[in-house]
Amino acid sequence: MTTPRIEILSIGSELIEGRTTDTNSAEIATALAEAGFSVAAVHAVGDDLSEITALLRNVMDRADVCICTGGLGPTLDDLTRQAVAAACGKQLRFDEPAMNAIRDFFARSGRKMPQSNRAQAMFPQGATVMPNPVGTAPGFALECGGRLLACMPGVPREMRAMLRDSLLVLLQNRFPAPRCIKIKTLRLFGIPESALADLLGDLMARGRNPSVGTNASSGIIGIVIHSEGENPPDVEQKLLETENKIRNLVGEYIYGEGTMKLEEAVARLLEQYNITISTAESCTGGMLGSMLTNVPGISRFYREGIISYSNEAKVALADVPKALIAAKGAVSDEVARALAEGVRKKAEADLSVAITGIAGPTGGTQEKPVGLVYIAVTDRNMTESREFRFSGDRHTIRERASLTALNMLRLHILENMPPAPPHV
Amino acid sequence: MTTPRIEILSIGSELIEGRTTDTNSAEIATALAEAGFSVAAVHAVGDDLSEITALLRNVMDRADVCICTGGLGPTLDDLTRQAVAAACGKQLRFDEPAMNAIRDFFARSGRKMPQSNRAQAMFPQGATVMPNPVGTAPGFALECGGRLLACMPGVPREMRAMLRDSLLVLLQNRFPAPRCIKIKTLRLFGIPESALADLLGDLMARGRNPSVGTNASSGIIGIVIHSEGENPPDVEQKLLETENKIRNLVGEYIYGEGTMKLEEAVARLLEQYNITISTAESCTGGMLGSMLTNVPGISRFYREGIISYSNEAKVALADVPKALIAAKGAVSDEVARALAEGVRKKAEADLSVAITGIAGPTGGTQEKPVGLVYIAVTDRNMTESREFRFSGDRHTIRERASLTALNMLRLHILENMPPAPPHV
Repeated sequence: MTTPRIEILSIGSELIEGRTTDTNSAEIATALAEAGFSVAAVHAVGDDLSEITALLRNVMDRADVCICTGGLGPTLDDLTRQAVAAACGKQLRFDEPAMNAIRDFFARSGRKMPQSNRAQAMFPQGATVMPNPVGTAPGFALECGGRLLACMPGVPREMRAMLRDSLLVLLQNRFPAPRCIKIKTLRLFGIPESALADLLGDLMARGRNPSVGTNASSGIIGIVIHSEGENPPDVEQKLLETENKIRNLVGEYIYGEGTMKLEEAVARLLEQYNITISTAESCTGGMLGSMLTNVPGISRFYREGIISYSNEAKVALADVPKALIAAKGAVSDEVARALAEGVRKKAEADLSVAITGIAGPTGGTQEKPVGLVYIAVTDRNMTESREFRFSGDRHTIRERASLTALNMLRLHILENMPPAPPHV
Repeated sequence: MTTPRIEILSIGSELIEGRTTDTNSAEIATALAEAGFSVAAVHAVGDDLSEITALLRNVMDRADVCICTGGLGPTLDDLTRQAVAAACGKQLRFDEPAMNAIRDFFARSGRKMPQSNRAQAMFPQGATVMPNPVGTAPGFALECGGRLLACMPGVPREMRAMLRDSLLVLLQNRFPAPRCIKIKTLRLFGIPESALADLLGDLMARGRNPSVGTNASSGIIGIVIHSEGENPPDVEQKLLETENKIRNLVGEYIYGEGTMKLEEAVARLLEQYNITISTAESCTGGMLGSMLTNVPGISRFYREGIISYSNEAKVALADVPKALIAAKGAVSDEVARALAEGVRKKAEADLSVAITGIAGPTGGTQEKPVGLVYIAVTDRNMTESREFRFSGDRHTIRERASLTALNMLRLHILENMPPAPPHV
């Protein structure tokens, strides 16, 4: 039992000229991982016969399986067929059944097949045709010097159908019982990736199985646990042990798993605790509200928000005393508290949060620099407020402030609010 | 005059495991194209020292320039430094000035530098450090067997700053006067990409110089005009001729150029016309406000917004008559108008916009399906309102609604509002 080395090759000039982002490779890698295969490398190359041929040869020098997407269309710049034939030293031959399938596809949509589509029925000798249920371009797979080479169309919808129906079946037949791989991602907020690495220490050591890696995107950290081995229950057990160790070390920062967003974790708590909420935003200008309201069903808990950009708005929409703003400044602990309390009372919500700060790039002073943000959370019994100094550009400061507000809401609910009575 | 062969190598297990889509490569390719360089191939590999080293060697066998992103973080799975050192046969050395810059970065945000960040001040011998103005990971560039190898961080924001400030300068110094290429992008909103292609017709034909291509991202369309040749004034002139043809055909949809966002176009008009604005959002929940307030300096024009998610909020915050909501429904032309007018009066703004709709996935009915959105714009003299039926998921519907509101503001200002008196 061996794990094949798999590489992916995406073909199309739009991919190397920056016009299109390659999403196919990620989709193929995900599907392969779920089936116990892993991808060693991903490549993209333009619509150039010699470039494609050279890269194909290069990949097949080291990989057991090369999966190509793109370049199977009917036009002159679709060159994958020719490149594969050249790289494998095969002739292209015409395939009558594939031709009929393409003709049928046009007939079903009431159109006559243009002559150029004949090119799509040409395949390298010895290739197995992979049917395309949703488009004209058939795929194909062939053996080439002991390696498996498979080509699928670049249109994501067409690739997707072929990947599940043909390619995965082919791989599983040829490489039975690959190694068992289980992957779990934990989501964290409120700790820099480097500080997290310090806390995780040896768990992240190279060569460990399960392996532990981290990634960071827009302030949200992912800890990825990757467990593999021969025996599925054993793989699962080892993953769980590692997860428990991680939870013991950094559990306070973990808000969810998989692809869960911080606003989804908050929305889930609002539902569990049956809490209504309102928001007051100054420097974030609606970003926090926008995050919250991207969660379906939030309307049962989110009553209203105000974007109190001007001082007048803080007074009019949240009853912040004019004198308080004059005395302490709009960006102050006191005004953050008054905003949160004012908007909670006005909205008759259980819980409220307010953000006031200086997002920059201008507007900062020695005393109150760009990045200074106050966030206050209040419920019917208490108000808490914190001062932050975020760094980065305007967008980053606003995003960190919004995420931090979400996290303060999460912790406030967990630490201070009574759980809703269980459903009877 | 030779054009160097450039390949891009993205490093990070998330890229080959399908967890993250590589957007850096496309961004680098676009920036290079604008500077007259082109990319021959793009690769991605995981956080594995021998894999990275092997692929680096492989790329440097054929490329003049290898641009890497990712793997420069402080953790044990950040291996780019080591791989480059191995591929080039160099030792890693500690760089004191880089260390100080990292320490300063932490100091500015009021944090103590974790010990692990010391790793980020290690560079292969002979490398030139490329400073990172917005994060901790410095980049570097070095000569290796006659090839240029440059490494930048994987965080897009950090990569972006370094790309413009350091890498492009380096490339232009080392490879002077490549073929003259001028690229101009026009930004459009309010027309589907396929309809645009029909209108542009022959201008988009293959093999044309200047070439004209389109791309679409989150509802914003780009028309990219690519003009190239030996003689710069001639290249510029041809680009201008093509641009004028395009403006004659589809000018009404063009709101800006380059990377300009729709909210920036609106902010510019608010400034030119000296107009204050307020917003009322229901289904978009703050997204419109968040877009507007991402423009620096907007606080001079944007007074306040309300996120009137509940009916009570529409009544309390924008004086929408309770009976009107009961009679017409919260998602109606009448309520959109009342919201816009109410929030304009309350904020004493010159101009206001209101959005009310059904973002889904639930909440739709036969009569008022998911995607139904009403947007109203009002000034001191008139109110206009439009009904839209957006398709797509919750996020897409909300985003289209926010962008459409921005575009309605833009057109309303241009068509109905008097320009501010010129500065004296």
